Amino acid sequence: MTTENRPHRVVVIGGGFAGLHVAKGLRRAAADVTLIDRRNFHLFQPLLYQVATGGLSPANIAAPLRAVLGRQRNCQVLLGDVVGFDLGRRVVQLADGEMQYDSLVVAAGAGHSYFSHPEWEPLAPGLKTIEDATEIRRRILTAFEAAERTEDLQELRSWLNFVIVGAGPTGVELAGALAEIARHSLKKDFRRINPSDAHILLVEAGERVLPSYPLDLSEKAQASLEKLGVTVRTHTHVDEITKAGVHLKTKTDGEFLPARTVLWAAGVQASPLAKALAAAAGTKTDRAGRIVVQRDLSVPGHPEVFVLGDMASYQGDDGKPLPGVAPVAISQGKFVAKLIDRRLRGRRLPEYRYRHWGDLATIGRSAAVAEFGRLHFSGFLAWIMWLFIHLMNIVSFRNRLLVLVQWSWSYFSYDRSARLITGQSGDDLELSASSEPSPVADLPQILPEREP
Amino acid sequence: MTTENRPHRVVVIGGGFAGLHVAKGLRRAAADVTLIDRRNFHLFQPLLYQVATGGLSPANIAAPLRAVLGRQRNCQVLLGDVVGFDLGRRVVQLADGEMQYDSLVVAAGAGHSYFSHPEWEPLAPGLKTIEDATEIRRRILTAFEAAERTEDLQELRSWLNFVIVGAGPTGVELAGALAEIARHSLKKDFRRINPSDAHILLVEAGERVLPSYPLDLSEKAQASLEKLGVTVRTHTHVDEITKAGVHLKTKTDGEFLPARTVLWAAGVQASPLAKALAAAAGTKTDRAGRIVVQRDLSVPGHPEVFVLGDMASYQGDDGKPLPGVAPVAISQGKFVAKLIDRRLRGRRLPEYRYRHWGDLATIGRSAAVAEFGRLHFSGFLAWIMWLFIHLMNIVSFRNRLLVLVQWSWSYFSYDRSARLITGQSGDDLELSASSEPSPVADLPQILPEREP
Repeated sequence: MTTENRPHRVVVIGGGFAGLHVAKGLRRAAADVTLIDRRNFHLFQPLLYQVATGGLSPANIAAPLRAVLGRQRNCQVLLGDVVGFDLGRRVVQLADGEMQYDSLVVAAGAGHSYFSHPEWEPLAPGLKTIEDATEIRRRILTAFEAAERTEDLQELRSWLNFVIVGAGPTGVELAGALAEIARHSLKKDFRRINPSDAHILLVEAGERVLPSYPLDLSEKAQASLEKLGVTVRTHTHVDEITKAGVHLKTKTDGEFLPARTVLWAAGVQASPLAKALAAAAGTKTDRAGRIVVQRDLSVPGHPEVFVLGDMASYQGDDGKPLPGVAPVAISQGKFVAKLIDRRLRGRRLPEYRYRHWGDLATIGRSAAVAEFGRLHFSGFLAWIMWLFIHLMNIVSFRNRLLVLVQWSWSYFSYDRSARLITGQSGDDLELSASSEPSPVADLPQILPEREP
Repeated sequence: MTTENRPHRVVVIGGGFAGLHVAKGLRRAAADVTLIDRRNFHLFQPLLYQVATGGLSPANIAAPLRAVLGRQRNCQVLLGDVVGFDLGRRVVQLADGEMQYDSLVVAAGAGHSYFSHPEWEPLAPGLKTIEDATEIRRRILTAFEAAERTEDLQELRSWLNFVIVGAGPTGVELAGALAEIARHSLKKDFRRINPSDAHILLVEAGERVLPSYPLDLSEKAQASLEKLGVTVRTHTHVDEITKAGVHLKTKTDGEFLPARTVLWAAGVQASPLAKALAAAAGTKTDRAGRIVVQRDLSVPGHPEVFVLGDMASYQGDDGKPLPGVAPVAISQGKFVAKLIDRRLRGRRLPEYRYRHWGDLATIGRSAAVAEFGRLHFSGFLAWIMWLFIHLMNIVSFRNRLLVLVQWSWSYFSYDRSARLITGQSGDDLELSASSEPSPVADLPQILPEREP
């Protein structure tokens, strides 16, 4: 127990996997924990692509932070916007005040990186937030609607071309789900277009899809994608993105592909809070804007300040930095909670070691790849593992049940019924390039013959 | 069968209850049906208040129109924005083209009416669309968050005061659900405020709540609301709405009530398309902007043009206009489909007669009122009827299942886990009136004592 009268104050910034596990891990510690987040919910990001493709609702993969932590008496949740740090005074600066800490844990995650092309962001949205997911869903569904409306063959083609930039897990999962929508879910929905004419292009600058996976699984993943009708282009850079499409570049060649829907799954960049914290601590960030942390995840020179998850650059046993995935964030969150607790009790401090369990990515229906050390799986068995592991890790029991119901339903019916176009109501079709009013009076003539 | 070569073209505007039932009712007719809507889904409006109060997700009460009508070969769905009519040329004008019809059915519904105060709309949102519902959900949840943050007692009070204007079914159901959130769902969520200190005021200009219901049920509904802690103020007008609260006025008195959350459930106004259609047809609208239709729901002088649902003013058997509720819209949709079908087959035309089955409204958990002619129910039995009837009327089987799972869960756990603050991310707390940064550093001091 701490010998001071006032309990030890732990401030945790970010309610993602890392931050949530710090707060939960401190439930028996002699500490007052405050979890600060800009949003009122924890988001299960690994399933965000299913919201973006109409398979799940936002609330199915989000758990209100207050509901998750409500029963933990030594923890409070604060909805707030952190803007900076004063490590000397041990103070976190908020948009509308400040907050004192004894231990600070910063786990604010990462956003998209468009490298040196911030102007691409509105043209090619990435997938990090609920709003990103509903915006991508809106764009995908609107593209099919606009294709159904247009009279112009070139425009039709550019509405049915979908480009996904980046073939990491997010890009692969988005491409697989998009192919399924086009081939199955929307099959009977349209009268003039055939949704399976959609052309889904997955562009990767590196030499293979899922570059962080073993070679054999990359090959299997690519084969599964191609079976679903996705075109995979490796060794290909995106040179330019415009409203009309993408310029692609290989070592020897260049090409313009007309496409009205471009999705970004290529680069991530640590939250800007990393830069602010590094400046306050006088330490450095890596190329992805992550703070290079000590072996115990603390910031150099500040043993009371920790950086976790996607914001931290930590060299794993293989010499490479740990990847920005949920298992890393969870293990780091648990470790830091333990370290703070032991420090308060005056006991020997633990050492951090990340044990890589495995990696899983799904490619549409009944197909996935999984790596558990030397064991590699693909196909249906890997897909069942993927389902099970994701389902069990969703935070609330209610959401686990709802996701199970919807997955079962979709599996047997091929339906994805959360395909709502919401948000910018009314203006959706103004995405259309044609400024001339097109005659739609003749539409009914191309209806198929009525059944007698 | 029609004797022309070209099939009879029916254009239906609006995919609500009325329009959807016209399209479905024509599935065996010798007609090509085009359903035009601005949105890509049919919305089950009677449960919209549950989305606004975090009980259900938007997709649970929305069915994609293409999925609902996808298998009906003589029907196509068009996402489009109708802007006007040329009844002489039998043409519907769209934002980007026009469409020819032989029979026209206009069922574009209604929006809010702020009487002569359009400036109140941003201050007191109403509940008609998915976006309205998520915006109201955001405001309700943000109010509790802001209350938790503030140091100022007056401000605290104004964040915990909720005013609902209008005690029809929507107002009553919103007030009941809001009271439940405050008393049950958020019970353990906060550390400084007690959510059940929230004060929910239901304001009604008329003499009783649920004015269209029998007197005994109005009384029972008011008693149920009061049991939940809702304050009901009848004979009270809203004189003014500002950012700070509402000015209330009775015959003898006036009063200002500070309240940061004001919700509008008072007046509806037919879609502006009613005015455009009335002008094109040279006919008249009533005070609520609805078109006064003939006995067969057609527009005077235009037997090929029908107006249905919330847009139509039709005198019922009791001399009063039929109310703007789902059963009326459904019966009118079915009738017009039958009439068009019979006309095409050259058979005797049916006569429209609305048979009032009953009315149901729910007031929070385990309480409702129901009227079926001379049979009146209240309490648990009425609530079970309400659950059953609403569940059975949700359009897709999948949504029926998802709603059932969530209702069961909420019933036993008191949880409403779709309570996400989405939309205007980050700026939520700027709703706060305080411009001075408030010190939040002392927050942990008011935490309850740790358990040993």
